[in-house]
Amino acid sequence: MSISKNQLKIITSLSQKKYRQKHHLFVAEGIKVVNELLNSSFKLEILYATDNFITNISSDKIVRISEKELQKISNLKTPNQVVGLFKIPDEKVLQQSGIIIALDTVNDPGNLGTIIRLCDWFGVQQLICSKDTVDCYNQKVVQASMGSLTRVAIRYVDLETYLQEAVLPVFIADMEGANVYTAALPKDAILIMGNEANGISENIKSLVKNRISIPRFGETQETESLNVATATAILLSEFKRSSYF
Amino acid sequence: MSISKNQLKIITSLSQKKYRQKHHLFVAEGIKVVNELLNSSFKLEILYATDNFITNISSDKIVRISEKELQKISNLKTPNQVVGLFKIPDEKVLQQSGIIIALDTVNDPGNLGTIIRLCDWFGVQQLICSKDTVDCYNQKVVQASMGSLTRVAIRYVDLETYLQEAVLPVFIADMEGANVYTAALPKDAILIMGNEANGISENIKSLVKNRISIPRFGETQETESLNVATATAILLSEFKRSSYF
Repeated sequence: MSISKNQLKIITSLSQKKYRQKHHLFVAEGIKVVNELLNSSFKLEILYATDNFITNISSDKIVRISEKELQKISNLKTPNQVVGLFKIPDEKVLQQSGIIIALDTVNDPGNLGTIIRLCDWFGVQQLICSKDTVDCYNQKVVQASMGSLTRVAIRYVDLETYLQEAVLPVFIADMEGANVYTAALPKDAILIMGNEANGISENIKSLVKNRISIPRFGETQETESLNVATATAILLSEFKRSSYF
Repeated sequence: MSISKNQLKIITSLSQKKYRQKHHLFVAEGIKVVNELLNSSFKLEILYATDNFITNISSDKIVRISEKELQKISNLKTPNQVVGLFKIPDEKVLQQSGIIIALDTVNDPGNLGTIIRLCDWFGVQQLICSKDTVDCYNQKVVQASMGSLTRVAIRYVDLETYLQEAVLPVFIADMEGANVYTAALPKDAILIMGNEANGISENIKSLVKNRISIPRFGETQETESLNVATATAILLSEFKRSSYF
């Protein structure tokens, strides 16, 4: 068997959000990520795999391809046995408890992927994204999240409306906020992280009173602010560490 | 003026470590990073800049180039006015106090750049790298560190020898280590972070007794370990936060 022209066209088209939304499909690659998706509630559309990829999924869902064909459809520097097309699941609305991360216009796929992994690690089950945050089914996000995508429920919302209706206390990561090490942090909260270049937008800021910051220890004031994924790591750690005391 | 063939050859060669070491030069790009380097103790060799780059450095150190030439020598997706060649400084040995980060075979330039930024933020003045850690004058590291390179003294050492001679207590980030949230952390310490895929090598592990870990809060055991830069962020934050109490 091999890939038909039509299949090739669909796979290629899925690098664009509008075609992912049209087909309700996204692409995941490589043994690790594909196996995590196969072992999750995500639904497989079809797998393109070389002969060395071993799996027990039914043969009508798998197309065996050559190494050369794999290289053609892969977006990785080092293609790794398998490219899968999976159905984009419906968004899940979870009960509002614990820590919820909300992202305001995070653009970089690598950052979103890292934040999804962090949510998974810290038991954050719901991740809220503003409509203009990068799509979590962007292939770079899928690969960077390394399977954590299957364990974090991600919703794209109008962030202003979401916050206006929020029941939990809301916190903003902001350079001028209170020292996160000494601030009193609740067990249940929404933590908003902002855009890589511009931070949190003014209309969101105007809705939220609680501001927290990670103090700078370095001597100079020139130090670039922390990367959004790095800052999310430290703040999430601060919210969760209290469960040990 | 414009770029000579010979200059072009040197600039291109600096993407390789052996030529950086031969010429004692590295490349930095873009207004922000170049200006941070110009305002530091780093020594400029020569700047290639388009007419819109405004600077007060002496004219014998600057070659005005066209937008087209800039695109030719730039490694950025969006070239930004200026490409600078700077002298690689001698390594500085600092007094052993405070927190020192030591990297065992960190390969990814983005990770090293992020860790340099973290050192800068948290006031870590000395960063120790094993000989096989990615070169900090690799251009991707230079760009990812965003100027923090000028404020952190980086040394490449034989890590085993370094640790055998170390005066400060040494800690390893290790999945089986003590919970970092409840562990007693000293003000002065060396913290070793390991390779992206393999963690810390066995010969280093055998030299160190103190092991700390970031507890996993998510329910499943399948969660991928944290990325090395993310883990460094959280652990550094834990070492430093005690100064507020």
